[in-house]
Amino acid sequence: MPNLALKTFLCASAALVLGAPATHAQSRKKARPAVAALAAAKVDRTDSVALRKIFDEALLRGESYENLRYLTGNIGPRLSGSPQAQMAVDWGKATMEKAGFDRVYLQEVMVPHWVRGKEKGEIVGNKGKEIKVPVCALGGSVGTGGKLKAGVVEVHSFDELKKLPDASVKGKFVFYNRPFDDALIEPGAAYGRAGDQRRSGAIEAAKRGAVGALVRSLTSARDDNPHTGTMQYDPAVAKVPGAALSTNAADQLSQLLKANPELQFELEMECTTLPDEKSYNVVGEIRGSKFPQEIITVGGHLDSWDLAQGAHDDGTGCVQSIEALRLLRAAGYKPERTVRAVLFMNEENGARGGNEYARLAAQNKEVHVAAIESDGGGFTPRGFGLESDAATLAKVASWAPLLKPYNVDDITAGHGGTDIEPLKAAVQPKALIGYKCDSQRYFDIHHTAADTFDKVNRRELELGGASMASLIYLLSKYGL
Amino acid sequence: MPNLALKTFLCASAALVLGAPATHAQSRKKARPAVAALAAAKVDRTDSVALRKIFDEALLRGESYENLRYLTGNIGPRLSGSPQAQMAVDWGKATMEKAGFDRVYLQEVMVPHWVRGKEKGEIVGNKGKEIKVPVCALGGSVGTGGKLKAGVVEVHSFDELKKLPDASVKGKFVFYNRPFDDALIEPGAAYGRAGDQRRSGAIEAAKRGAVGALVRSLTSARDDNPHTGTMQYDPAVAKVPGAALSTNAADQLSQLLKANPELQFELEMECTTLPDEKSYNVVGEIRGSKFPQEIITVGGHLDSWDLAQGAHDDGTGCVQSIEALRLLRAAGYKPERTVRAVLFMNEENGARGGNEYARLAAQNKEVHVAAIESDGGGFTPRGFGLESDAATLAKVASWAPLLKPYNVDDITAGHGGTDIEPLKAAVQPKALIGYKCDSQRYFDIHHTAADTFDKVNRRELELGGASMASLIYLLSKYGL
Repeated sequence: MPNLALKTFLCASAALVLGAPATHAQSRKKARPAVAALAAAKVDRTDSVALRKIFDEALLRGESYENLRYLTGNIGPRLSGSPQAQMAVDWGKATMEKAGFDRVYLQEVMVPHWVRGKEKGEIVGNKGKEIKVPVCALGGSVGTGGKLKAGVVEVHSFDELKKLPDASVKGKFVFYNRPFDDALIEPGAAYGRAGDQRRSGAIEAAKRGAVGALVRSLTSARDDNPHTGTMQYDPAVAKVPGAALSTNAADQLSQLLKANPELQFELEMECTTLPDEKSYNVVGEIRGSKFPQEIITVGGHLDSWDLAQGAHDDGTGCVQSIEALRLLRAAGYKPERTVRAVLFMNEENGARGGNEYARLAAQNKEVHVAAIESDGGGFTPRGFGLESDAATLAKVASWAPLLKPYNVDDITAGHGGTDIEPLKAAVQPKALIGYKCDSQRYFDIHHTAADTFDKVNRRELELGGASMASLIYLLSKYGL
Repeated sequence: MPNLALKTFLCASAALVLGAPATHAQSRKKARPAVAALAAAKVDRTDSVALRKIFDEALLRGESYENLRYLTGNIGPRLSGSPQAQMAVDWGKATMEKAGFDRVYLQEVMVPHWVRGKEKGEIVGNKGKEIKVPVCALGGSVGTGGKLKAGVVEVHSFDELKKLPDASVKGKFVFYNRPFDDALIEPGAAYGRAGDQRRSGAIEAAKRGAVGALVRSLTSARDDNPHTGTMQYDPAVAKVPGAALSTNAADQLSQLLKANPELQFELEMECTTLPDEKSYNVVGEIRGSKFPQEIITVGGHLDSWDLAQGAHDDGTGCVQSIEALRLLRAAGYKPERTVRAVLFMNEENGARGGNEYARLAAQNKEVHVAAIESDGGGFTPRGFGLESDAATLAKVASWAPLLKPYNVDDITAGHGGTDIEPLKAAVQPKALIGYKCDSQRYFDIHHTAADTFDKVNRRELELGGASMASLIYLLSKYGL
């Protein structure tokens, strides 16, 4: 694009160039209007000015990008129970205190402590020829107790596995090789459809007498990064190791198997589960000016997988949650309701932090208006997905015109998130809200060593924090 | 995001998981319905099925990513007049022929031939201390004729320059240091507002007797990449050199100037303009089955700046334009109107290809229904911006429900693009249409050595080609 094309962007952005959106002609007099009035988007003109201030602050003086640089670069991988997870707790508390929230505190919670150790995978072909391939243990897997060498049977579903005769499964590795369905527009949907292989692959393999599960990495990308992620065991079934192969390795293994169904795979993993460790959720609060007993939570998870810096998963959600509160303050807004940023511990392999947060909320008889979670990466904002009744969704959707100038007005039914999910049973918030951003790149790096700070774009990240702050502003002002 | 969060994506994507969109209940009988009928989105249910086929083909068997890998990796930078530009012409023609279009041909056009040569910039401070900083010549600049050393005066606008006394400008470099306005949501708007410095900085500097122009790179990014781009001369004003500084270098120079207003800058640039070269637009056509005389053009520009691989600017637009036609064919669709993919030559520093295409269209008395341009990068699709009358915009916007499942339904007034712009005066198409995709990352790499293949995401790119093919399908079927 040259000089001459400047016009393109000037035209396309004319509305924004003119300043704050001015589509909300009707002014509001009452502090708490009826739902019906709001449903017709009769929000105050001051709201559009407030949102513009929030976005200005984020884009001109945002702090979340530099916070993320520190979290990912100076602390890095921070799996539950690790020393780095504790460093992240200390960092989160200090960062919130520095931001000047009214109250910053920790919630103690016992978390799993799984450690990886060395790991190695090799395809062993004709005449013992060995091809080393990228593998990683799935989170929570047992180790192999030295080298584990066996034949391989490839399947694409549990149904296919069930139909195999015992002789072709027993004593072998079950190799789950169903790829992402690339035709799905949202890669998250493909993740959902392929996820059973990782989650329950080892259980289903062990039921049939297999020695372990090899799982194709959950991604559309074709590369050499194995993707870890949590796996489950069934107390009634023997525990066998579960490992992920990179997609390239999975393709290679599949191809070699076709030529030589008798080939073997040698897996060596030292991973093991240690006793639970004490850890913490980190909570920061701005007290509501009018309805302090009504709480709005915004959060991400502080733990990450051990292979990764945990930039998009979920460092971005953490720094955006802290930033959302900071932006409200910096934009000169004193929230009517209490707003809490929560850095949840142990989302990846247990959700103990989310459960403990909900347990304490119930125990303390807290009133929760809404909870927002950011755990889908820090890419360009699109909108919000709500778990709520229809009237609540309609009310939030009525705010879309205020959010449209920032391209974050895609407000639909959806799912909140793993960490806020337990609040539903515990304290029945009116809405669980998932922050939605562009998702095309997310699963390329998800749970891999490639989930690093350089994959995060400053503006995309700061726009996300501002989007969350804007929704909180509206939730806090109008309630649900 | 863990295992447990699979639900998030399943919920969010439920509509898509269920298959083709089914929101278009009313069927159409007539081949060419009235505008009013279309304005109410009375499109055929077969349209939603056709679009789903196009997207399936792109996501499962798309070829644009591998085409781009070749163009950027095997040919690379391809400024007008360079041997690589000719290689790109040959590649474009061969690629279209391989795709089996009905007709593939070249349009000869003479283009500028500017070459960069060596370049160096140094801040010369107290006691002759030299700090080398990243600079690059702006496209079309004259060289410095050896080392050019002079004082520096910093300004942020032409107004500010005008108010300076002659003595503080004459014999110096004018250093234009107005940054991007980061508060603007679309970075393209910030590009538009900062662009005069690069475009006309040397002219305005020379008018005041300055020896050259140093221009802050047009980007929000803070890094060491200087951004080139075209600059202008005025025949009535002396030609002085124009160079871009990286944003880090601009910040450094500004800071040092505050401490020492007498510092000097030494610039050495060997760039020069050679005689015009013969080059070509590359055109590929699928002939319309019902209205072959009515033409729909889709294009990007084949030339790139010399510093860059020209991945996002505009290799993506080229491969998407070729792919759009291939997708129509592969999805089993025979367009009613003639569809042309055009790889325009010389968009970056002259737009000679776009002008020649329009000139020939007028000469041949062609009827052009619409022209689409992709020159804003290959990121996740958002929609289309139209230069048209209101009724045409309303008609195209009525197709938004068909495009919504693919998140490419943001259809607004906008600007078409530099290469299709000359068609307006030449043959008056009903609409010039700019393809809009996510733009937050574009200007980080625009016109720099960092505009490389690895910045392009496969799915984002293929979704873009499918979006363009879908719009062409509708334009071809229903006309304008």
